[in-house]
Amino acid sequence: MIVQKQFFSIDSFLFEEENRRIPVKIGYETYGSLNQAKDNAILVCHFFTGTSHAAGKYQENDALPGWWDALIGPGKTIDTDRFFVICTDCLSNINFNNPNVVTTGPASINPETGRQYGMDFPIFTLKDVVKTQKLLLDSMGIQKLKYVIGPSMGGLQAFMWARHYPEMVEKLVSVVATPMMRPACLMVPNQLGIDAIMLDPAWKNGNYYDSMPPKSGLLLAFKILLTATRTDHWSHSNFGRKFTNQDSARTPFNSFSEKFLVETEIEKTVLQRMQFFDANSYIYIAKANSLFDLCENDETLEQALKKIKIPVQMIIDQSDLMFTQEQAEEARTWLSDCEVVYYNSRNGHLSCLYETDYFSSALKNFVV
Amino acid sequence: MIVQKQFFSIDSFLFEEENRRIPVKIGYETYGSLNQAKDNAILVCHFFTGTSHAAGKYQENDALPGWWDALIGPGKTIDTDRFFVICTDCLSNINFNNPNVVTTGPASINPETGRQYGMDFPIFTLKDVVKTQKLLLDSMGIQKLKYVIGPSMGGLQAFMWARHYPEMVEKLVSVVATPMMRPACLMVPNQLGIDAIMLDPAWKNGNYYDSMPPKSGLLLAFKILLTATRTDHWSHSNFGRKFTNQDSARTPFNSFSEKFLVETEIEKTVLQRMQFFDANSYIYIAKANSLFDLCENDETLEQALKKIKIPVQMIIDQSDLMFTQEQAEEARTWLSDCEVVYYNSRNGHLSCLYETDYFSSALKNFVV
Repeated sequence: MIVQKQFFSIDSFLFEEENRRIPVKIGYETYGSLNQAKDNAILVCHFFTGTSHAAGKYQENDALPGWWDALIGPGKTIDTDRFFVICTDCLSNINFNNPNVVTTGPASINPETGRQYGMDFPIFTLKDVVKTQKLLLDSMGIQKLKYVIGPSMGGLQAFMWARHYPEMVEKLVSVVATPMMRPACLMVPNQLGIDAIMLDPAWKNGNYYDSMPPKSGLLLAFKILLTATRTDHWSHSNFGRKFTNQDSARTPFNSFSEKFLVETEIEKTVLQRMQFFDANSYIYIAKANSLFDLCENDETLEQALKKIKIPVQMIIDQSDLMFTQEQAEEARTWLSDCEVVYYNSRNGHLSCLYETDYFSSALKNFVV
Repeated sequence: MIVQKQFFSIDSFLFEEENRRIPVKIGYETYGSLNQAKDNAILVCHFFTGTSHAAGKYQENDALPGWWDALIGPGKTIDTDRFFVICTDCLSNINFNNPNVVTTGPASINPETGRQYGMDFPIFTLKDVVKTQKLLLDSMGIQKLKYVIGPSMGGLQAFMWARHYPEMVEKLVSVVATPMMRPACLMVPNQLGIDAIMLDPAWKNGNYYDSMPPKSGLLLAFKILLTATRTDHWSHSNFGRKFTNQDSARTPFNSFSEKFLVETEIEKTVLQRMQFFDANSYIYIAKANSLFDLCENDETLEQALKKIKIPVQMIIDQSDLMFTQEQAEEARTWLSDCEVVYYNSRNGHLSCLYETDYFSSALKNFVV
């Protein structure tokens, strides 16, 4: 499936928390065709550090397809022969090195100053992100979605949809996400990742666009993120206690530059992903995750969840350390129509991307 | 119980990994009395970031007693009316601000240069640490220990004792520690903590003793450590999603300096502990933990564990994310005489210090 990035502009987008308006451009992709009745649309929301490139390839010889290509495509679980699938970039998902990701963020030029926003970019929440999606759908004339689905931060957005635009969503599917951002999850990786980037002297309060970006801080933030989204079992079965330099396994290990294989492999993965990431964007999206909260005003979570009446499917990996079975069971008691599907990859949160076979048939049964 | 710090000097201690010798001074404490036969001694090994102050108070009005005072004392589980209990500082456990902790480490003066060792201090392993304990016992004329016990890094040392000086140990008790350092545990908190400190520009390759120490890096390292040793349940039940500034709970949350209660409370705890900690010491002890390995030469872990013949008790918190039930079960199959005691505090690894009631009676039954 050959796909292409598209763009949607909002002349004056209101950031609710700061009550500020700025022009915003959002990257998105679509797969399949919108039917005449405009009633076959599905919204897919991406995970933290992901992009709107959810499926297909830009060119036949791309090394890898979009991140949920295993699920989305002709005849697949999310069947593009029948449905029109939309995936948008999260606000601030800019990357100045990658022309395919140009969603407005801290690295964008502030038209008022002619310079990058940096840390003057407005703080946003996932409610704002969902609103950009709503405006895109409005512009397409789509009044109802078959369902909203996403893994991790994408699942949080699905809950935001059900909470704020219930009349537009038939069903929601939350993969490896519960409708709560509990404090452990808020700390790891979000707040600790922010700390790591801000600690890097190259960060310079976010004003690094004319100099070297804070690579070391971003590397540490990504390492914290990747470690938190995996398990003891995953790293043990993949790397054990091997040293990167295999010759040194039993020779004197007397330098801080000698590393374990687990660390250098994680760094290798991270460095690939980091090419497409701006450190300030990481800070803003991590903050948006930390601020995730379904409650409005003085509502409790119980009250907020009881307002969600549409059918919900929560797909939870029992080895996930961030969005746990305990959270899912608590949420289930407050949702009026909720099915929880458990699987156990033993590999943690990231199984949502690489081991979709665990849940694809349960998903298919729910969304037919 | 009023106690005092004592000191033991080794004129020329061999650091095995680097094959270097330097003079070393080790702080230690003892509780109870050594009997005439010298056969009533127990060795207690401390956890990462702990000290040899395991029990009692230096002065009646000390705010807190030693870290395992709930277990160690007259008539307690580790009964100082009957036993002579020894706890030594881990190598490098120096703190230049705290006269009670003066064990040789990177902040000590190198007699050859007249300046602090900094990163020229030898890399050491827990095998070296255990050897310092062995030399202290030799100097006291103690040839056999009733048992060696410790939580976390202390449990790893107990396994080192059984592996390298089996003739000197009757039994070993490992609390919230298994005899393996698997890669997830090696990363979090050890290697990520080292990264955090080295990222701080104040660290200056470890040469900060004439300037401001790398407080921000050490703070992040400790935050990573504290988060890894607790659970989702712990932070949720203690802090929920409260903001530090309670007034801002539902008001616009539009600043990166506004924090969640979980974060500021963790920082508060960390800042108290940091007063007594040198950043380079953190790096060295984290490295010693990462390098923990019972295997010698080409041994597998199975072969190494099969050489341990003394009775072993492993006490495991099922909510511990670092030393897990899966690891304990694997180790049990290779140990000839091993009892595993499980409890579930739901609060994670640190329960070993604050919730000792979960395992004190099982411990008592094992060591009588």
